[in-house]
Amino acid sequence: MVQVTVLQLDNYGPWTVTPNPRRETDLQALQARLYADLCQQFGLLGGYVFYGRFDNLIAFTDGISKREHGRIQQSIDNLYPVSVSMSIGRGNTPKQAVEIASANLQEQGSSQDADRSEVLVEDEIDELHTTAVGVAHFDVVDVTDKITDEENAYEACLSMESVYSDLMRRMYADYDALSFFVGGDNIISVTPKLSDSALDEVIVKTKQNTNVQLQVGYGLGDTPSEAGMQAKHNLELCREKGTVIERDRAVVERSSAD
Amino acid sequence: MVQVTVLQLDNYGPWTVTPNPRRETDLQALQARLYADLCQQFGLLGGYVFYGRFDNLIAFTDGISKREHGRIQQSIDNLYPVSVSMSIGRGNTPKQAVEIASANLQEQGSSQDADRSEVLVEDEIDELHTTAVGVAHFDVVDVTDKITDEENAYEACLSMESVYSDLMRRMYADYDALSFFVGGDNIISVTPKLSDSALDEVIVKTKQNTNVQLQVGYGLGDTPSEAGMQAKHNLELCREKGTVIERDRAVVERSSAD
Amino acid sequence: MVQVTVLQLDNYGPWTVTPNPRRETDLQALQARLYADLCQQFGLLGGYVFYGRFDNLIAFTDGISKREHGRIQQSIDNLYPVSVSMSIGRGNTPKQAVEIASANLQEQGSSQDADRSEVLVEDEIDELHTTAVGVAHFDVVDVTDKITDEENAYEACLSMESVYSDLMRRMYADYDALSFFVGGDNIISVTPKLSDSALDEVIVKTKQNTNVQLQVGYGLGDTPSEAGMQAKHNLELCREKGTVIERDRAVVERSSAD
Amino acid sequence: MVQVTVLQLDNYGPWTVTPNPRRETDLQALQARLYADLCQQFGLLGGYVFYGRFDNLIAFTDGISKREHGRIQQSIDNLYPVSVSMSIGRGNTPKQAVEIASANLQEQGSSQDADRSEVLVEDEIDELHTTAVGVAHFDVVDVTDKITDEENAYEACLSMESVYSDLMRRMYADYDALSFFVGGDNIISVTPKLSDSALDEVIVKTKQNTNVQLQVGYGLGDTPSEAGMQAKHNLELCREKGTVIERDRAVVERSSAD
Ligand SMILES: Nc1nc2c(ncn2[C@@H]2O[C@H](COP(=O)(O)OP(=O)(O)OP(=O)(O)O)[C@@H](O)[C@H]2O)c(=O)[nH]1
Ligand SMILES: Nc1nc2c(ncn2[C@@H]2O[C@H](COP(=O)(O)OP(=O)(O)OP(=O)(O)O)[C@@H](O)[C@H]2O)c(=O)[nH]1
Ligand SMILES: Nc1nc2c(ncn2[C@@H]2O[C@H](COP(=O)(O)OP(=O)(O)OP(=O)(O)O)[C@@H](O)[C@H]2O)c(=O)[nH]1
Ligand SMILES: Nc1nc2c(ncn2[C@@H]2O[C@H](COP(=O)(O)OP(=O)(O)OP(=O)(O)O)[C@@H](O)[C@H]2O)c(=O)[nH]1
Ligand SMILES: [Ca+2]
Ligand SMILES: [Ca+2]
Ligand SMILES: [Ca+2]
Ligand SMILES: [Ca+2]
Repeated sequence: MVQVTVLQLDNYGPWTVTPNPRRETDLQALQARLYADLCQQFGLLGGYVFYGRFDNLIAFTDGISKREHGRIQQSIDNLYPVSVSMSIGRGNTPKQAVEIASANLQEQGSSQDADRSEVLVEDEIDELHTTAVGVAHFDVVDVTDKITDEENAYEACLSMESVYSDLMRRMYADYDALSFFVGGDNIISVTPKLSDSALDEVIVKTKQNTNVQLQVGYGLGDTPSEAGMQAKHNLELCREKGTVIERDRAVVERSSAD
Repeated sequence: MVQVTVLQLDNYGPWTVTPNPRRETDLQALQARLYADLCQQFGLLGGYVFYGRFDNLIAFTDGISKREHGRIQQSIDNLYPVSVSMSIGRGNTPKQAVEIASANLQEQGSSQDADRSEVLVEDEIDELHTTAVGVAHFDVVDVTDKITDEENAYEACLSMESVYSDLMRRMYADYDALSFFVGGDNIISVTPKLSDSALDEVIVKTKQNTNVQLQVGYGLGDTPSEAGMQAKHNLELCREKGTVIERDRAVVERSSAD
Repeated sequence: MVQVTVLQLDNYGPWTVTPNPRRETDLQALQARLYADLCQQFGLLGGYVFYGRFDNLIAFTDGISKREHGRIQQSIDNLYPVSVSMSIGRGNTPKQAVEIASANLQEQGSSQDADRSEVLVEDEIDELHTTAVGVAHFDVVDVTDKITDEENAYEACLSMESVYSDLMRRMYADYDALSFFVGGDNIISVTPKLSDSALDEVIVKTKQNTNVQLQVGYGLGDTPSEAGMQAKHNLELCREKGTVIERDRAVVERSSAD
Repeated sequence: MVQVTVLQLDNYGPWTVTPNPRRETDLQALQARLYADLCQQFGLLGGYVFYGRFDNLIAFTDGISKREHGRIQQSIDNLYPVSVSMSIGRGNTPKQAVEIASANLQEQGSSQDADRSEVLVEDEIDELHTTAVGVAHFDVVDVTDKITDEENAYEACLSMESVYSDLMRRMYADYDALSFFVGGDNIISVTPKLSDSALDEVIVKTKQNTNVQLQVGYGLGDTPSEAGMQAKHNLELCREKGTVIERDRAVVERSSAD
């Protein structure tokens, strides 16, 4: 099972141009801070958030209650000139969960209904496989030498964009996984449990399609943050051992604070 | 002429995993806030910033001095656990400017040199055409009905990704323009002066390639923020008049505060 | 019982002048944001934080575990150039709790030991009365007419300072309560259970000493945020009914999100 | 001459309780972030801001134009659920300037008029002495040993409060200076030009009244940030030389970024 929350700014398009178009740098600052706040709050509770389209964000929220969602929603309402609606969905795969969460939110009205504000809905499905959340942390081998110190800053963006565009689509089509660019040369996928050969196939095909060599750390856990942290430790193992896939075996030292 | 500043976090990759991999939600919050601060500070001085790859950002900084860059650099140093290097380049087109800024920064050492920290370099070219900065603000017609209220939240990301991927590459190859996804259904291009037919061709081809109908407001100005604000007013004109290209003619009311 | 956490920036004094004195506006921004983050994170978990001296803060953290403290500590470490130590103390009164928390932290070394960093200690007292947390929310009657619209902005600060200086000391000496100025004309006290006559005496004496008329909403709860929210509803009752003390009776509507 | 800007949140009291009282930790986060943003923006332009009562703030803005004020005002409006009014005043002393700025703002209506929103007024006095801004940076000698590592965290707040309360009032009454607690053991005064004997008298009297030994670095400059930076360098001189007053003589190294 995986729990996904779809977050949507309420009636945001009209707000950006009322009474006059607002300064773009301020809108960028607003969107970025709102995202940072969601990261910090969902993160504190063991969740993960990705910026998506900035006005529509996707969070992985296994173990986070509706009431806790409500507190975060309220905090956004108190701190920002815009408010957010949230829809919590569950499914056997990330794809299923985001479909349910999205459909439930859309049922509440349009994202540009002036009346639909601060919706908080939760999906109530019971028959789900109880499985761990999987996180694959993909990273380019030697991005510094091959891209960052080599190409101009804009072409480097285009290069990374080819990679994540390709990866996002294949992971979704082939494995029901949702993938997100998280900066630098990193792409994080939230996945159902993946086999070794699946991970292998993914990075082989990326190499074929984009000529970029990826490495991947894979982790499983009860919460996205547990799985993600294990994925990161496994990615470090790749670096140490010079391999391109590491998974599960990592014995992750857990500090008391973690 | 256009002035571009390339910003690069210093030795950021190693920091993210020292002494252990850091919680991803914190890294996301860090990157987002740093971006927000740059937006607010460059924005106050009339500039524009785009997040690029989050660890490598691209700013348009016409009229902003090296000394002012230094103050922003210092402020980041005081407020964050990471520091930033900056390289200011000038060219006849955005492409030229980003090439120069990137090359000058790369000359100072690798982005992962532990020794290269808080570099601030400025390019000294004199023979440049003095022209206005151009900003094209592209936006999907009816994204709410066609995508946001229709597709699931993840597929909506993929849909927008197709559009901006296509647009980013063509604007760069055909017009030396740098284009950035800024959230929702919006893409902002900083361009040399573009003709009507160029703008027309761009949105026709996007429609052919992705089946998405764009509208565009175009503006020219002495600073990116002036040009960008005019572009936004022109985009509003498209909405009012039901057209898909509006440019220049907009008489932008300038409040005393602007 | 009440649980207090003392938070202390590690070796912050030396940092502010290394290698050179840092721009004061940046230090102010740093301190304020760090405080805001602590508010948001402890607030999400039902706690309260007050800025104290900005480098030494005092939080009320009933129901928040050591592990949760550790996550917040880690997040500060990831997002800021400075780190924080925390000491969790429990007592029958706020005064007792802050004494214990402070002593335990001081035992770990000086606030300016370069070696003492990110300490997280918890006091293990068992024999405590189990009682509700009390929060008194004091507010000046008609501050707008009497002070804000009347005095110059600086003298208005001095006026409020007289009030909170007087109140902080008396609440501490007479009731073991810790009081904090929270902006505007508001002072929040975290208290043991107070009688009606105690509250009455407090505002009568403030009037005698400073000639300022206070009103107070008082609340009790299992967590500081519950008690504080009830106090606020009671303060609203004062406004509706024209009284100066309201307590307990408020039937606080609890939204699902609260 | 000194230029002071009074900043006031518009109709903020009612907002904090509409439709219901808002969570205090969110209000604290809001106020702190808004202050941080003002620090960063005024700071970038060479100014200084102090939090005052958080809903009424006092800035020193020599050299910052009305138009620049307007940009900052607009940015607050775009990023926060509350807006701010600003009144720019000039005088021969900080006291005179804050009086004028306050009176001009009060003339525009009450801080709780629903109609008075985002006022931006500037005082137009011409006959002013042209003199440098003075900044005195006061700091307790050995606060770590004497207070922080010694007293409990709350009593340490009370101790510092005695000092700044005493200092704020005397500096205002005797020298027309405005003084602000800036965290830790630091108080910053913006002053007319002060003589050596004045500074001496101030710290002697503080010692008499509160038994706390202060040291002070004093600086003069064209902008508050220049004067303040010189004050900080002079305070470092006190530490090096073991003196309690240092002024002016400091040859401040100016980095290119400053
Ligand atoms: N969001 C995020 N970004 C990271 C993380 N680790 C590294 N990065 C980014 O990735 C960029 C490149 O760093 P590395 O991957 O260490 O550099 P590299 O040259 O590819 O080195 P190898 O991966 O070891 O081959 C950095 O600048 C960061 O932006 C992470 O855990 N999360
Ligand atoms: N960054 C940014 N995003 C914007 C701006 N205006 C709108 N958006 C985003 O675009 C999304 C869609 O808004 P609209 O473009 O108004 O909606 P629409 O249904 O496409 O309507 P039309 O464009 O009028 O056809 C919003 O949710 C915002 O995320 C802007 O000026 N800047
Ligand atoms: N921190 C905080 N500040 C508040 C709160 N409510 C009001 N304030 C502040 O108090 C200031 C004054 O507001 P009010 O107390 O409503 O105004 P008043 O004129 O005294 O009116 P009455 O209290 O109704 O007599 C506002 O500008 C805010 O700064 C609150 O819940 N928390
Ligand atoms: N706002 C601000 N706070 C500072 C600054 N310098 C120090 N502090 C604060 O002051 C506290 C005490 O630091 P110090 O003054 O260095 O410590 P001390 O023990 O008094 O040492 P001496 O002043 O050298 O006698 C720190 O924790 C900071 O909170 C500064 O420049 N600005
Ligand atoms: Ca890499
Ligand atoms: Ca649109
Ligand atoms: Ca009041
Ligand atoms: Ca000191």
